[in-house]
Amino acid sequence: MPQRLGFEFLGTFWLVLGGCGSAVLAAAFPEVGIGLLGVALAFGLTVLTMAYAIGHVSGCHLNPAVTLGLVCAGRFDADEAIPYMVAQVAGAILAAMLLYAIASGAPGWDISKGLAANGYGDASPGKYSMAIGFVTELVMTFMFLMIILGSTSKRAPAGFAPIAIGLGLTLIHLISIPVTNTSVNPARSTGPAVVLGGTALHQLWLFWVAPMIGAALAGLAHRFSDED
Amino acid sequence: MPQRLGFEFLGTFWLVLGGCGSAVLAAAFPEVGIGLLGVALAFGLTVLTMAYAIGHVSGCHLNPAVTLGLVCAGRFDADEAIPYMVAQVAGAILAAMLLYAIASGAPGWDISKGLAANGYGDASPGKYSMAIGFVTELVMTFMFLMIILGSTSKRAPAGFAPIAIGLGLTLIHLISIPVTNTSVNPARSTGPAVVLGGTALHQLWLFWVAPMIGAALAGLAHRFSDED
Amino acid sequence: MPQRLGFEFLGTFWLVLGGCGSAVLAAAFPEVGIGLLGVALAFGLTVLTMAYAIGHVSGCHLNPAVTLGLVCAGRFDADEAIPYMVAQVAGAILAAMLLYAIASGAPGWDISKGLAANGYGDASPGKYSMAIGFVTELVMTFMFLMIILGSTSKRAPAGFAPIAIGLGLTLIHLISIPVTNTSVNPARSTGPAVVLGGTALHQLWLFWVAPMIGAALAGLAHRFSDED
Amino acid sequence: MPQRLGFEFLGTFWLVLGGCGSAVLAAAFPEVGIGLLGVALAFGLTVLTMAYAIGHVSGCHLNPAVTLGLVCAGRFDADEAIPYMVAQVAGAILAAMLLYAIASGAPGWDISKGLAANGYGDASPGKYSMAIGFVTELVMTFMFLMIILGSTSKRAPAGFAPIAIGLGLTLIHLISIPVTNTSVNPARSTGPAVVLGGTALHQLWLFWVAPMIGAALAGLAHRFSDED
Repeated sequence: MPQRLGFEFLGTFWLVLGGCGSAVLAAAFPEVGIGLLGVALAFGLTVLTMAYAIGHVSGCHLNPAVTLGLVCAGRFDADEAIPYMVAQVAGAILAAMLLYAIASGAPGWDISKGLAANGYGDASPGKYSMAIGFVTELVMTFMFLMIILGSTSKRAPAGFAPIAIGLGLTLIHLISIPVTNTSVNPARSTGPAVVLGGTALHQLWLFWVAPMIGAALAGLAHRFSDED
Repeated sequence: MPQRLGFEFLGTFWLVLGGCGSAVLAAAFPEVGIGLLGVALAFGLTVLTMAYAIGHVSGCHLNPAVTLGLVCAGRFDADEAIPYMVAQVAGAILAAMLLYAIASGAPGWDISKGLAANGYGDASPGKYSMAIGFVTELVMTFMFLMIILGSTSKRAPAGFAPIAIGLGLTLIHLISIPVTNTSVNPARSTGPAVVLGGTALHQLWLFWVAPMIGAALAGLAHRFSDED
Repeated sequence: MPQRLGFEFLGTFWLVLGGCGSAVLAAAFPEVGIGLLGVALAFGLTVLTMAYAIGHVSGCHLNPAVTLGLVCAGRFDADEAIPYMVAQVAGAILAAMLLYAIASGAPGWDISKGLAANGYGDASPGKYSMAIGFVTELVMTFMFLMIILGSTSKRAPAGFAPIAIGLGLTLIHLISIPVTNTSVNPARSTGPAVVLGGTALHQLWLFWVAPMIGAALAGLAHRFSDED
Repeated sequence: MPQRLGFEFLGTFWLVLGGCGSAVLAAAFPEVGIGLLGVALAFGLTVLTMAYAIGHVSGCHLNPAVTLGLVCAGRFDADEAIPYMVAQVAGAILAAMLLYAIASGAPGWDISKGLAANGYGDASPGKYSMAIGFVTELVMTFMFLMIILGSTSKRAPAGFAPIAIGLGLTLIHLISIPVTNTSVNPARSTGPAVVLGGTALHQLWLFWVAPMIGAALAGLAHRFSDED
């Protein structure tokens, strides 16, 4: 159990450092920046790499919504859910702190450039409303869990799930970064929000509630359809 | 059968929401937009992710041309083709409706920005003619089916077909978005056309006829060459 | 044998249509073009998709240099090399003809925009000299064959070679498009050169000689080092 | 042993030629350049392709930090570490020399455009300080080794490690090119530094010390947590 929690901590640290880090440090680098496509790829690759590195130990959830969805699908022990979520959030906060330390060292940087926090309304990259942000996060997390639950079922080809899941997260970012900066992961939202405070912290509730509902619905849907 | 139709519905919903959604929401986002490369990747990843998630249940066609091609190749029961196609089209229309609801919520959005509908002539991104659009869709769908039929044959390495097929769809978009906005999938074309009406609906016939011919030819070609 | 030649014809058709097609139609599309990164990805994905679709039938060479390298490595029957190469070149020429028909249909297109032919000196994208082009093509083809021969050896993990080889071709394009527009494949060079004539045809010799030398050297090197 | 050293030499040659080569030749090509995203992909694909091509012979370290990390984890014989590192550095230097010969042939090129050397302070792409560069290289190499050690453990799915490791290196570049131009590999830093001299050579110490510490820590951490 300690080793598994340690890997969930490390993996979520990597998800936030890699995903938010690429957004903050490299997305808008002059002339050769990686753009939203590079950020979408980075988020997905954090999950792909960790799923191969630690999946066989901890299951590589890295996301409280994933943990909840697996519990609802009857695939994960409910007693272990809270410790997993605590480890995930702690890893995300540490990553946001490290990212702040790195990013703030660049000439001309100021806090208004943020840490790739999630948001809605004026804090949405494309100024989408709270209602649209809520629906988008719910639907995207629902589909993320459908990918996870389907690709890890016993009848799916063995070994490929990390590719489907990682690139699935990339796909979700390709669609929805303009809407909410894409969360589908309460821990990923909590890291930057805790370090930044202000609007990011005030809006954090949505990035817990909507993904958790979407994940729970997917878990229940799979439970009653799964032929495994 | 109900579960399989449900998954075809869900998968095609995801194909249109992800592919058209990335095009409408993120392709031309100021300075850091994902461009046609990101859209091509998104379309391919909808298929890659669903093929690992639901392929072992429904076969993950998500496309009436794929269903027809598999029937022509002798790999799918003709009696099931119509229900599959209805489920696919229904999923595509629901996705286009949801995408409309999300996209129309952005400040400054108007319907002229479309929903990534397919088109020819003045409705082609690069103003290619109807004849060129027809040939392009036919050839691209023919090759798409050759990839599908070949990579899922018994002699091909097991488990890798979703990668070949998903990235094959990415490749097809990298070539042909400028010509027709790329369909190779009548359901994907029908979703936005039904929601938008107008030119997209008037030109919809081509995106049923050309892909269906291309797919049928590939299915027949494979049937008479397949050594399986 | 006829089926295998048919697949080599079809596969090389796809390589040139997809690779050169993405370059001509989509690379410089206004604002959202796929750039050299998209073209590099497209070339690689033509090989990845075909390797899964037809590799178990014909071996999926799609390239006279690959065929020669495999002969030199003792992995392919020399008697079949010439028919394979003829099929490859024929497929490449047909693809260049089709691409010309599609591309020339766009408003404002003229022949000076080319068909993604290879070249050196003034015909090099970055104006690199003939000598540099020769060395670059030789080294890149040598490394391409090392990837092919290594990843298809009996001791390498089964089923993954198409990923290594396809993305290896992507990598080679990421490096060397500015130098020669990247060939490493005499058939791919011959298609556009035959359709365009002029400089492309005059310079075609280099894109036969340099890749063939590089491939032969790799084949011989592997033959005397291979532990299989 | 000679064959394995030869492959380490060749593989590291490819890593530097492909990674630094794409950066120098193609990253900032006018209008259609591949950008930092393309460079990140190129670095990763050098490792992915070589891991499938030579991994079954030499293990495909291509990096003194990787060799050290594997020794610390008890997975590689310490007696072979120094010969491996010498072969890696030699391959990197040869690649930098060849790249110099190619790049210097372009009209208008001058040495100030560099060879994608690593650096900090004024030599950092984003002008990050020495301290930030040190921490970044240490953390990134630590995570790189966690990916390598985890994905090659006996309990991880067989055959997929090259994908996780190669795309892991891509991810690391997506995050940290702006900080140090990304090393995590002392051999990769040594090649350009030896050819260029000057600042790159003066700052080379950091790109040996920080990656080696990060890799050693990861090796030790894995040794005491590994359940294999």
